[in-house]
Amino acid sequence: MRKSLRGQVDPFIVMDVMEAAARAEAKGRHIIHMEVGQPSTPAPEGARRALAAALEQPLGYTVALGLPALRQGIADLYRRWYGVDLDPARVVVTPGSSGAFILAFSALFDAGDRVAMGYPGYPSYRQILRAMSLEPVGIPTRPEDRYQPRPADLPDGCAGLILASPGNPSGTVLRADELRALSDAAQAKGMALISDEIYHGLSYADRCHSALEVTDEVFVINSFSKYFSMTGWRVGWMVVPPDHVRTVERLAQNLFICPPHASQVAALAALDCTGEADANLAVYAENRRLMLDGLPRAGFHRIAPPEGAFYIYADVSDLTDNSLNFAAEILEKAGVAVTPGLDFDPERGARTLRFSYARATADIAEGLRRLAEFMAAR
Amino acid sequence: MRKSLRGQVDPFIVMDVMEAAARAEAKGRHIIHMEVGQPSTPAPEGARRALAAALEQPLGYTVALGLPALRQGIADLYRRWYGVDLDPARVVVTPGSSGAFILAFSALFDAGDRVAMGYPGYPSYRQILRAMSLEPVGIPTRPEDRYQPRPADLPDGCAGLILASPGNPSGTVLRADELRALSDAAQAKGMALISDEIYHGLSYADRCHSALEVTDEVFVINSFSKYFSMTGWRVGWMVVPPDHVRTVERLAQNLFICPPHASQVAALAALDCTGEADANLAVYAENRRLMLDGLPRAGFHRIAPPEGAFYIYADVSDLTDNSLNFAAEILEKAGVAVTPGLDFDPERGARTLRFSYARATADIAEGLRRLAEFMAAR
Repeated sequence: MRKSLRGQVDPFIVMDVMEAAARAEAKGRHIIHMEVGQPSTPAPEGARRALAAALEQPLGYTVALGLPALRQGIADLYRRWYGVDLDPARVVVTPGSSGAFILAFSALFDAGDRVAMGYPGYPSYRQILRAMSLEPVGIPTRPEDRYQPRPADLPDGCAGLILASPGNPSGTVLRADELRALSDAAQAKGMALISDEIYHGLSYADRCHSALEVTDEVFVINSFSKYFSMTGWRVGWMVVPPDHVRTVERLAQNLFICPPHASQVAALAALDCTGEADANLAVYAENRRLMLDGLPRAGFHRIAPPEGAFYIYADVSDLTDNSLNFAAEILEKAGVAVTPGLDFDPERGARTLRFSYARATADIAEGLRRLAEFMAAR
Repeated sequence: MRKSLRGQVDPFIVMDVMEAAARAEAKGRHIIHMEVGQPSTPAPEGARRALAAALEQPLGYTVALGLPALRQGIADLYRRWYGVDLDPARVVVTPGSSGAFILAFSALFDAGDRVAMGYPGYPSYRQILRAMSLEPVGIPTRPEDRYQPRPADLPDGCAGLILASPGNPSGTVLRADELRALSDAAQAKGMALISDEIYHGLSYADRCHSALEVTDEVFVINSFSKYFSMTGWRVGWMVVPPDHVRTVERLAQNLFICPPHASQVAALAALDCTGEADANLAVYAENRRLMLDGLPRAGFHRIAPPEGAFYIYADVSDLTDNSLNFAAEILEKAGVAVTPGLDFDPERGARTLRFSYARATADIAEGLRRLAEFMAAR
C-alpha cells in the first residue's frame, strides 16, 4: 500500500538501546538504566487514591479543553511557581506534552513552514514537525552557552521557534533575561514562540523561569510526566494566548476529543502531592551530586552544567566519533545503558552521549562504579 | 500571534447543542440527551477492578505500539468476531480511534492529498484531514443505498478512501460483498483504504464484517470506546498491513510516545468482560425498538435502517430546511437535545437530524413521549 513521505520519520535511537538492554536482561545480565527519560517512581499516592475512588463513575468524555477544576488548578500553579496571574481559560489540558505539540503546530504553522530549535534538542520536535509537513531548522548551540541558542542565532525565514528550559538532553536552564531576549528576538522576526517547560519543578539551584513571566505571546507546554512522576498517564497542558483558545479548542475537539479522563482525575489530585514530588526531587539531587562527582572521575570531563531535569550531556569527542558504537560498547562491556547523542543532534551527536539519572540512587552509584571500571580498562 | 490556515477547522456543532442543553439544565430544566455519541455506562467492572489492582505499579511509558498482551488480546478478538487469523504484530494500540486516524493519515498521505469519504459521515474525518493539510472529498450517498457509497461513486484523483460501517450518523452496515466491491474499487484507483469499525459489536441483526475479511491492504480502526463502553479512556487500536508496521511504530513513538498506560491495563481486562458489554447491547436493542416505533409515530418517517451503532439519521426535509434552528426549537420546546445533520453532511445536513439512543431506556421512552407531544403541537 502507498506510503507518505511525511511518514518516513527517524526512529528514536534510544528505543534501540532499550531493546538491546532488554535482550541482555533476558539473557540474565543485570543492566543499569541511564538511557531512560522517566522516573521509576509511580504517580503520587494521592493521585492514585483519587483515581481509585473515582472508578465507580462513568469517566466518559470530558470537554475537549479538560476538566475545569484541573485547568483552574494548573492556573493556580503559575501563581505559586512564578507569581504569574493566569486566566484558567488559557489553560488547555492535553494528552501528554506530545498532544500539546501536535495542537500547537496545527494552530500555528501551515505545510512547508520552517520551525527553528536549538540542537541538541528533544528528537520528537523534529519528527512531529516532519509528520505534519513542516521543516525543522536546527540552531547549533555552543557548550559555552550551556547548549541554549543566542538571540543572534535565530535564522531568517522561520515561522516559529521552540525553546526548552531545562533542556533535554542538556539539563541547562534559561535565565529570565535570556528568555526575554530570545522572546523579543523571535517576535521581531515574526516567529511564533513555543516554550517547552516539561522539566519545570526539577531544578537544583534557582527556580526555573516560565516564558509567561516575560510575554503572553507564547505557547507554553508542560506535563504531569516528570515533576509529578506520571509519564505513562499521558496528561500534559498548554497555555496559549487568549486569541488562540478557540482555535485550539476546535482542533482538540477533532484531533483528540479529550485527554484521558482517568488521567485527568489523577492529575488533579497530584497537584496537591508536592511533598511526594519534592521527595523524588531530593533523590534526583543526590543522584546529580554523585554524577557530577563520578562522571569526570570516570573520564567524562566535558559535561554541560545540569541545572535541571535529570540528564547530563557529555561531549565524548576525545573518546569516539561514533556515539552509536560507543553506547553499544558501554552496554556490552559495562552493563550500563546510555543514549547516543544522535537522537538529539543529527549533526554533532556522533560525538556526544546523554546520561539519565532518574532512577534510584543505588542504581546510579553502581552505574558510576561500572563506568569507571569500563573506562579504566579501555 | 500568527495563526495557521490548517488550524481553522469547523467546530463540532453537537458541542454547541451540549452547551445549550447544559445551560438549560443549569436553570433547572430536565433535558433528555439524544445528542451524545457515548454510552452512559462506565467501563466494565472487570476493567475497573484490574486498574485498581494495578495502581501500585509505576505505570510508566509502555512501548509505542502498546502492551504486548493487549495487542495479542485484540488479535484474538479478530478470530472470535470474524474468523480472521491476525498476527498481533500488525495491531497498534492507539490513544483512542482519534490517535489512530492521526497515525493513518500521517503514514499514508502527504500535504495536499485528497481523501474521499461518504457524506453523511463522522465530522472529525474532515477536520483532522484539514489540520494535516489534506483535502476531504465528500461522496454524497443516497438513502436507498443506506447512506453508504457505491463503488462507482469513488472520485478520481484521491489518495485514500474512508469507509465506516456501522456508519455514524446512519447506523447502517456494509455487507461483506459491498465491502469487497468497495475495497476492490479503491485498490483499482490506487486509493489507500481506511475502514472505521468503531461501532463493531453493536449490531442488531447480522454481525458486522471487518474489511480484514476481504483484504489485508487496509488500515482498520477500532476502539474500546463504544462496545466496551470506555469513551473517556482514550484507548483504541489500528490493524495495518505488515509493511506499514515499522512506519506506524516510528510515528507513534514520536507523536504519542504511547497510549495511556492505565487505560491499556483496563482495556486488557475489558476484553474478558463481554457479558457486561452484551448486557449494554441488549439495552441499546430495546432502545432501538422503541425508537423505530416511536420516531415515525412522532412524525419522523424518513429514517435510515439503523442496523448498528446507537444512532438514527432522519431526513427532516419535510419539516425544515434549517436543522440548526430545528434542533434548537426541539431543545427549547420539547426538552430533548438532538444533533443537527450539518455536523455530518456540510451540504445536505441542513435538512437532517441525528438521534442517539445510547442512554437508559427510561430516558429514551420519555424522550420519545416529548418528541411526539412537540410534533403534535407544531
